[in-house]
Amino acid sequence: MTRRLKITVSYDGGAYCGFQRQGRGLTSVQDVLYRAIEATLGPPARFAAAGRTDSGVHALGQVIAFDTEGTVPAERVPLALNANLPGDVSALAAEEVPFAFHPRFHAQSKTYAYTFYGWQGDVRQPLLARHAYEVRRAIDLAAMDLAARRLVGRHDFSAFQDVGRPVRDAARTVFRCEVGSGQHCLPPWSGSRVGFVLVEADGFLYHMVRIIAGTLFEVGRGRMDADAVAALLTSGARRGAGPTVPAHGLCLLNVKYSSEPAPHAGITAAETLCCHAID
Amino acid sequence: MTRRLKITVSYDGGAYCGFQRQGRGLTSVQDVLYRAIEATLGPPARFAAAGRTDSGVHALGQVIAFDTEGTVPAERVPLALNANLPGDVSALAAEEVPFAFHPRFHAQSKTYAYTFYGWQGDVRQPLLARHAYEVRRAIDLAAMDLAARRLVGRHDFSAFQDVGRPVRDAARTVFRCEVGSGQHCLPPWSGSRVGFVLVEADGFLYHMVRIIAGTLFEVGRGRMDADAVAALLTSGARRGAGPTVPAHGLCLLNVKYSSEPAPHAGITAAETLCCHAID
Repeated sequence: MTRRLKITVSYDGGAYCGFQRQGRGLTSVQDVLYRAIEATLGPPARFAAAGRTDSGVHALGQVIAFDTEGTVPAERVPLALNANLPGDVSALAAEEVPFAFHPRFHAQSKTYAYTFYGWQGDVRQPLLARHAYEVRRAIDLAAMDLAARRLVGRHDFSAFQDVGRPVRDAARTVFRCEVGSGQHCLPPWSGSRVGFVLVEADGFLYHMVRIIAGTLFEVGRGRMDADAVAALLTSGARRGAGPTVPAHGLCLLNVKYSSEPAPHAGITAAETLCCHAID
Repeated sequence: MTRRLKITVSYDGGAYCGFQRQGRGLTSVQDVLYRAIEATLGPPARFAAAGRTDSGVHALGQVIAFDTEGTVPAERVPLALNANLPGDVSALAAEEVPFAFHPRFHAQSKTYAYTFYGWQGDVRQPLLARHAYEVRRAIDLAAMDLAARRLVGRHDFSAFQDVGRPVRDAARTVFRCEVGSGQHCLPPWSGSRVGFVLVEADGFLYHMVRIIAGTLFEVGRGRMDADAVAALLTSGARRGAGPTVPAHGLCLLNVKYSSEPAPHAGITAAETLCCHAID
């Protein structure tokens, strides 16, 4: 009997060409997940994911869903999949969901963190370098945080979008956008401070979080102020925003769902998984 | 004019055969440091390190020293070296030291952390897996900590030594040995708890920290008690101790020096760097 499974997955994106299958001899996270599902449950149908993370981007709580004839009970699926996955990709949780569920269209929000370090004169840290961007100059985190909060709300984020993945409508609702810092604790007592840009939204444009982070770094360096950042929401001028900062600092933290499909998803049940099937 | 430089280095050991040069086509941390020094300051003489970390072991504060004719001012050496080092090895600090200084023989203590996760039923975490060992079962951290503290003091650590690097005398002074846990915070809000075994001592036998950690995990699982661990200090029976746990959880946190050579080092100034020269 066919079931639809929702799986929460985490991965270190360093070795992959991104989440989405690319072909051309490149390995995507989707490729290794697909193969592991095939080996564990048989070939999946209507495979879809909440977010198409780019090459080098990590995930702590990506969500995928697919239909399967496989009979492994949902609670045993993570361990069974992990036996067929490489060490840098892991299934954390699995549950059976209604066929109406789509991991992307029914997501209420996704939260990304852009992690960075090195703004206090500390030099390159190999134990952080894989998951955090090295800021090589002094930055003002408080100024960045003030500017970040100006992006909260429903706005046209055209200025925070790179070419390459055209959308009809660049309006997105940002629920949370803030800058903070904490002590890095792996290994314990490392003493390094890490900073982060946290963005929760109902959807993201191409490179949106990395351009927001790059723009906030300009604020941190005193090259832009919060008003200039807010003005980008009306001008829509990509060239007025900061650079797209490197992928390895970015991590998809989690995807939130309500029990009902999110009202702002604007997609009917009939349009679910099929349209993003890869098989 | 020849100077002796002391450099604090950090590295992700995942890609290396260990700190020490092995030859046979293998790349050691020493190899890449040596090449970077050669390119920056000319060939180093009397190169030595505080600890010979094994393949896969990381360092947050390894200390090396060497003699050089190079004229780059000490404070500029880290950035100059980093320009010639791969991303997984970094020079954090440099200073000129007297020719009597030896990074290993004059160390008062070295501190290692063995980091682990997954004892609360959480599954494999790709974002932790590179630097922390996955414990796949419930363990009692408080019991481990009580047993760990029994190892503090000057003892014969023969039971906590693997064959392969013979020593005349297996007595070492452990200044600190404890077990704790904390919230993993990279990326922020990961929610994973990481545990650690922290060991500070005046010297370490082959695999000593990894066998101590392996033995403490046996305690955590209820297979040994603190008295049995303490008894290993008198029996010296390696087979009574736990297994040698994997290298990737281990990290050399720091090396402490006093202004004077440490009294317990038992080495005269004449025996310094030369005996461990690699060139």
